[in-house]
This record gives sequence, structure tokens and C-alpha cells, in this order.
Amino acid sequence: MTATKEQPVLLHNFNAGPSILPKTVFEQAAAAILNFEQSGLSILEFGHRTPEFTAVMAEARGLLRELMHLDENHEVLFLHGGASTQFMQVPMNLLDAKESAAYTDTDVWGAKAIKEARLFGKVDVVCSSKEKNYNFIPKDFAVPNDAKYLHITTNNTIYGTQWQKIPRTSNSMVADMSSDILSRVLDFNSFDLIYAGAQKNLGAAGVNIVVVNKNILGKIKRAIPTMMDYRNHIKEDSMLNTPPVFAIYVCLLNLRWVKAQGGVAALEKRNIEKAALLYREIDENPLFTGTAAKEDRSKMNVCFVMEDPLMEERFEAFARTRGIVAIRGHRSVGGFRASLYNALPLSSVEVLVQAMRDFSNSLN
Amino acid sequence: MTATKEQPVLLHNFNAGPSILPKTVFEQAAAAILNFEQSGLSILEFGHRTPEFTAVMAEARGLLRELMHLDENHEVLFLHGGASTQFMQVPMNLLDAKESAAYTDTDVWGAKAIKEARLFGKVDVVCSSKEKNYNFIPKDFAVPNDAKYLHITTNNTIYGTQWQKIPRTSNSMVADMSSDILSRVLDFNSFDLIYAGAQKNLGAAGVNIVVVNKNILGKIKRAIPTMMDYRNHIKEDSMLNTPPVFAIYVCLLNLRWVKAQGGVAALEKRNIEKAALLYREIDENPLFTGTAAKEDRSKMNVCFVMEDPLMEERFEAFARTRGIVAIRGHRSVGGFRASLYNALPLSSVEVLVQAMRDFSNSLN
Repeated sequence: MTATKEQPVLLHNFNAGPSILPKTVFEQAAAAILNFEQSGLSILEFGHRTPEFTAVMAEARGLLRELMHLDENHEVLFLHGGASTQFMQVPMNLLDAKESAAYTDTDVWGAKAIKEARLFGKVDVVCSSKEKNYNFIPKDFAVPNDAKYLHITTNNTIYGTQWQKIPRTSNSMVADMSSDILSRVLDFNSFDLIYAGAQKNLGAAGVNIVVVNKNILGKIKRAIPTMMDYRNHIKEDSMLNTPPVFAIYVCLLNLRWVKAQGGVAALEKRNIEKAALLYREIDENPLFTGTAAKEDRSKMNVCFVMEDPLMEERFEAFARTRGIVAIRGHRSVGGFRASLYNALPLSSVEVLVQAMRDFSNSLN
Repeated sequence: MTATKEQPVLLHNFNAGPSILPKTVFEQAAAAILNFEQSGLSILEFGHRTPEFTAVMAEARGLLRELMHLDENHEVLFLHGGASTQFMQVPMNLLDAKESAAYTDTDVWGAKAIKEARLFGKVDVVCSSKEKNYNFIPKDFAVPNDAKYLHITTNNTIYGTQWQKIPRTSNSMVADMSSDILSRVLDFNSFDLIYAGAQKNLGAAGVNIVVVNKNILGKIKRAIPTMMDYRNHIKEDSMLNTPPVFAIYVCLLNLRWVKAQGGVAALEKRNIEKAALLYREIDENPLFTGTAAKEDRSKMNVCFVMEDPLMEERFEAFARTRGIVAIRGHRSVGGFRASLYNALPLSSVEVLVQAMRDFSNSLN
């Protein structure tokens, strides 16, 4: 049978987020919308205080603890909103008006975090790669000892850079890990606070994961609104109010998948292989150029350009015929961005690399 | 074929929220998780800045405008979080530290709103039904002219009371309509701000609808965090950051259903019929007693008790054999609560009423 317009091509989704999740997650999520755990009810009409959903929450929390090897000081929260909500919630909880926090300016998201922190205390921007359109990760910078915490964005989705080594300081560490959480092994316990919007490696948009060392909370004078105070969410097991039930359920399904794949270490191995394959083609194929400094290249978001914008349009259309979607770069970088999150199979990267070669050859 | 344990009984879901939605909404939502609008991608992996999702957002916004007959001053927002987030966001945007706002204390939720408002300005609690376990809606109270706004909870989910008439004052009106929005015709334009968690009559948990008169914004001195400032969300068409994509899509599906049913007026007619049927049985059947003052009875949440707690357990089990689920009352009222949201069919109420009669007869 020959392919017709009606037969959909298998798609390779390189979306930066919301992004690809495992096919089994989609299938199980869809099934739960029709009938959640043989209850006869949809997960969308299911009470969040029922034993069934309480079990979902507990399992999701437990799996994240297990996959991140968290110690007893660290609490796992599932909160409303995305990382942008955390830009304000972190300083609201951790930074008194007269105190100072250190921030690293390595992309648009870090810059947004800086802007919000300034509403709550003093902000010391200890390094910035802004002058070079955020194409590298600063290496030499000092963090004042009295900085309440040091904030980093571990992976910079728009510009395709990633902290290969987490800076070692005596300060408390706070990290936005929205776009690389669970993609590589880190000593997560060395962070006092980690946050991540779910829509990349965790689950569906509409929920925010916060991992917090409970010992750093309650040290400031500010009155914190109920919904913004991490301590209230810890006390109520992330059910202070009606949680984003379905988004949390999708997280659970995805966390089960992560564990079944062998956990974070196994996924990291695959992610290294995927990124290496694509960067090799970018470096070898004269048509394409990587935009990030080589030593800081992200294994999650691979950014590259072509010399001629018209050629970029042609390549995008060519790639589309191979089922490759969502590779357009962010407007602030241009060109292409291929996001290689956990759920993206190596085979999709192989298809992209082959398309780059074939396109290149087609011009000769 | 006789019924066996394997054959699920058709369930009648009286959940207070998350609650029943139309079956077609579940079916369409599940289908979109497998393949969103024939894109070959799941809605869960679909970029929120794509023309397809921008269209979802625009249609949802437009439908809500149409169904609520909103004028040009009123903006519709889809925000992260539930109504509990609005408890702080409303005063943060509307109330300066030295100003005063009037609040009505008609249930646990109103009391929570009062608590948050006190963090931002002065709060004048103009009436309360707390002393009678919130079983009525106060009628005679005065609102100071200088109150920046009057806040009411139009329907009180836990206690089963509802404002039958919206108080007429010269003040700006702010309402939490989480549990009765779109269930009855109101002059929505007479409110300056309306908010509602979606998980009752609007859609799935994880999104919050705010309808705001844009002319009341920007009148205070406080610096508002980016994600909390309604003006930023208006400017960005509710896409200031990655929105809760799927929860908004479920809203759209449900709003289409509301329109197809004939809109709010048609649903109100059905809701009146459903509530009348159940309250009639409560009043006529000596086993059951309604808990809310008759003139203030909610058409959304019908609360009733039996004299003997053991009898309540027996009735709950009896009802369960008829497929009736989630009728346990909130712990602060006890007994039963049958929530009759828009999507609950009259036939489910008929089954409940029949169960009440049959149970009663079985005791004779």
C-alpha cells in the first residue's frame, strides 16, 4: 500500500515544551479520562480527596523522591502554575527585604527570575552572558558569602546552553530545572530548592514541581499569602486546595515510565548519545552551525542556524516531509532548535540527522 | 444477560468538585490526548504558541464572553491555580494598604478570602452566618460607601446556600462564583471581578477563570509580581507563561457543550427542575432533613442529613447499589451533599430521589 495524504506520517516532535511524552503515557492518560482505574468515572470528575487520588499523589511524590535520591530533609511539592510563578514564590519565601540573593543571568528565564526577586529583596547579579546573546555559561564569578542563596537556571531552553558543572559555593543553592530535570544525574540533595514546570521532562503543562529542603523555610519576617507559603503545601501534602489533578496524574504516569527505563542514569546515557549524534552532524555538515559555545552545549535543546534564512525555510519544509515537527528556533536566536527531552527516541534524532544529510546532498 | 460484578453499573456522580462533566467532553478530551485535531500529536505535547492552540484559547475566551453576555470593559482570563489563588490575587490587585474592602462571611471559602485580604489592606466583614454554621445567607447589612469593593461567594459549596439575589450596592462587586458560574442567568457585567476555579461547571481542575472590568485595574500603589498582575495576563491573552493547556482545552469543550444546550438560560431551567425535585423529596420524606435555610437553598449543592449516623451509612450503601456516588457531605456539615452541576442529568436526580423513597419504604 502506498502512502497517501490520508495516511499520517509518523511524527518526530522536537517541541521545546509542552513537549513529547512517552506514547504509553498518552494512551494511559486517555484511558483514565474515559475510566479512571476501573472506577467507572473519568479522572476529570474524580474527587481529589478520595483514597484513589491521594494514592496517585503519594505515588508520584514517592517516585520523584526515589528517582532523585532525595534525603529526608527534602520535601516534594506539586503546585499550581509554572516556573514563572516560582520566580516570585522563591524570594517571597526565602529572601527578607534587607537581605541579598545572588542570581546568574544566563537566559531570558533567569532574567525574569531576577526581575521578580528584586520585588522582595536585594539582588546581586553575579554573572551574565547577555552581551553574547546568552550563548555561553559564565565560568569565573564570585558569590558573596552573605548571599542568602545562589540561583541558577540549569538548562537554558531558548539558547541551548546548560551548566555542565553546578557551581560549588558555600551558599544555599536554588535552581530552575524546568528543562533538564530527570535528564541527568545530579546531587539533588545539594540544592536547597529546585523547581520545574512539568511540561518538558515531567508531564503535562499546568503543574509545577518544587523540591525544597524544609530547614530553609520559616526564616524570614514577611507575611506570606497562604497559597504562596511552601510550608502550608508541605503540611497538606500538596492538597492545600484542589490540585491540578490531571496534570499530576500525567506526571505519575511519566515517572513510572522513567523508573521502568532504568531511572535517571539510564536516561542520561541515552540523552548523551542523542545529543552527540546531532551535534556531530551540526559540526560536520557545512550547511549548519551550532549557536552555543561548545563546552556549554545543552543536551536537551540543540540550537543551530543556517547561513541563509531562505535556506532555513527550505530545510524546515524538507524536514517536515520526513515527519519532523517543531524545530523552529526561538525568535531571539532564530534558526532551529531541536529539543531532545527524555521521551524523544534516538530514532527521531536519527531521522533528523539523515534529513540534514539528505538535504545537504540534494544541493550538490 | 444478568448483571455480574464485572459489569459496571451506570454511575451517577454527585461529586462537589472536581465533578461530572458531559460525557462528550470526556470523549473529545480523551481523543485529543491521542491525536489533537488530526495533527498526529497529543494535545499534551502541543506547543501553546501554535496557531492551533491560540485558536483554542481565543474560542474559549469568545464563548465565555458570549455565554456571559460580557461587555467590552470586561476581559476574560484563564489563569493557573484555583479560587484559593484569587483570594490573594484580588486584594493584591485592587486594595491598597490603607484602603478598606467589604467581605461577606458566608462559608469557609469566604472566610479564607477574608484572611488573605487582611494581608493587603483593611477588611470590613459586613455580615456573617458563621454562628449558625453558615446555614443561611445574611440579608440585612450595610456596606460602607468607601469600601473599595464588596466581596461575595455566590454559592456556598460546603453548606448548600446561594445568594438568590445579588446585593445591590453602590460599591464595586467582586464575586467568587466557583460553584455556580454558568448555572444561572446573572447580570455578569454588574460585577467588576468574577473568579471561578474550573472544576465544577467550567472544566477540569487546574485552571482558574477571571472576568475583570479592566477599568478597575492599575489604581493602587503596590508593586505587583508579574504573574499576579491581571494587566499582564490581559496583555498576553492569558499566555504570559505556558498556560495549563489541557485544562483550558477541556473548558473549551465544555463551553461548546453549554452553548449547544441553549446557553446559561436553558441550563438554569434544568437546574431549577433538578433542585426542585430533590428538595421536594427531602421535605416530604420524614427520614431526611435539609440543612440550609429554605429561602437560601443552593440549586448546585443540596445538603441534607438523617437523624441517625448509622442510618446514614446504610442509606449511602443502599444508594451505592443504584450507582449513586459521592453524596457524602463535607465533614463540617455531615450527612449528605448532592451536587447538581450543569452536566448532571435530571435522570441522575430521579435515581437519587427514587433511592430515597425505596430506602424509606424498605424500613416500613
